[in-house]
Amino acid sequence: MPSDFQKFKLVIAFDGTAYQGWQMQKIGLGVQQLVDEAIKRRFPGAKRLVGSSRTDTGVHARGMVAHVEIPEEGMRVPIRRMALAINSLLPHDIRVLQASRVHARFHAQFDAKGKQYRYYIRNHHAHDPLNRQQCWHVPGKLDVDAMKEAAKIFVGRHNFRSIAGTQNYERESYVRTLTKVAVQGRKPDLTIIIEGDGFLYKMCRNIAGTLVQIGQGKIDAAELRDILEKQDRTAAGMTAPAHGLVLWKVFY
Amino acid sequence: MPSDFQKFKLVIAFDGTAYQGWQMQKIGLGVQQLVDEAIKRRFPGAKRLVGSSRTDTGVHARGMVAHVEIPEEGMRVPIRRMALAINSLLPHDIRVLQASRVHARFHAQFDAKGKQYRYYIRNHHAHDPLNRQQCWHVPGKLDVDAMKEAAKIFVGRHNFRSIAGTQNYERESYVRTLTKVAVQGRKPDLTIIIEGDGFLYKMCRNIAGTLVQIGQGKIDAAELRDILEKQDRTAAGMTAPAHGLVLWKVFY
Repeated sequence: MPSDFQKFKLVIAFDGTAYQGWQMQKIGLGVQQLVDEAIKRRFPGAKRLVGSSRTDTGVHARGMVAHVEIPEEGMRVPIRRMALAINSLLPHDIRVLQASRVHARFHAQFDAKGKQYRYYIRNHHAHDPLNRQQCWHVPGKLDVDAMKEAAKIFVGRHNFRSIAGTQNYERESYVRTLTKVAVQGRKPDLTIIIEGDGFLYKMCRNIAGTLVQIGQGKIDAAELRDILEKQDRTAAGMTAPAHGLVLWKVFY
Repeated sequence: MPSDFQKFKLVIAFDGTAYQGWQMQKIGLGVQQLVDEAIKRRFPGAKRLVGSSRTDTGVHARGMVAHVEIPEEGMRVPIRRMALAINSLLPHDIRVLQASRVHARFHAQFDAKGKQYRYYIRNHHAHDPLNRQQCWHVPGKLDVDAMKEAAKIFVGRHNFRSIAGTQNYERESYVRTLTKVAVQGRKPDLTIIIEGDGFLYKMCRNIAGTLVQIGQGKIDAAELRDILEKQDRTAAGMTAPAHGLVLWKVFY
């Protein structure tokens, strides 16, 4: 990297309802594209924005991280005003929460040591109209204690093939380490916190869907252990909808 | 009331973003009208729905209460399915959370002993994109301790004329008793809880606006006491925007 560029780390929140996920899209609009365009308009000559993670259509973020390189001569804005400057060119459902100067070797994706996702569930006969696009409406009985117990089964280093979506590349390793899977909150509002060193396609949504099926008594803990061991996607529970999921934080 | 009607109490939540408030409107759409129409479609012969409170355009509710009388012969639905039956005819931004049978003399408005409102504030340079329609974005420094102290000044029995909107009827008493005014939460997310036996037009939004001006150092506690004593609207602080306000609960 030439020395006349400066690198910045951005923390970005977005309401994913209107977008086809974070990444650039051939069809439909990705959040990344809008942030990238806003940066380039404000800081001409900026390089392409690089995000820490892809997110599915409809998934939200409170702590997406991205890096960008900006020509030094274009940096007429003090760092404390950088987020404001970019936000002024973004729609209201996307906001840069923080901007900070980072070392030239920082990489939002490759340096990420782990991530936390949160999955929100509303367990009540009526959905929450004020939060309807940010949690999954699951009416009917849910055994939350069974979900809490089963959540522990996911924790640790496992081959998550049977919990991953089918779009992973064949060569990719399915082994990931989850450091936390916990069901928190009180009915009707439950949150599943999922933290780990890396995530396969649809892994969080499949964990949430499987835990709900455990709460509904459709799968039991022994079956879940069996599903994980089978390493076969067809064995796992359902995929929870995208709109309940939030990329909460990326750890470096 | 003829004995062939049964009376029901409904607890209703709604996202007020798309509506001109709760009450029926000559121009624009009130939430009450949609709930009323859904009930009459499902339970032909039902009387007009009566709500506990009016709400301004854009204000939300988690605990609006209303009563309705339904002909006994129309009650083919068990009470536990009543909310579901009405919700199936409502848009997703309005939900009946509870339905219960009440005494024939119950009145949602006249029997209300008190109400709790909550006002949400986001004190950060960037608004929260996931909550942008349900809290007021107040960037810049806010002295939350000063707000907490000043909130206590509102508590008690006062003439709130200088805190009310200008649309109150001349003859109406401006005396109300507030049992709780408290600023809670941690930056960047603050909540003002306001509880009392009755509320004047725009009273909650004016309390929130005045407390923010205290946090910004534009008004001090002595001035607030003076404003309350003056009983003159022109003396008070600004009116906070509607979308930060939620009718939280009605007490009976």
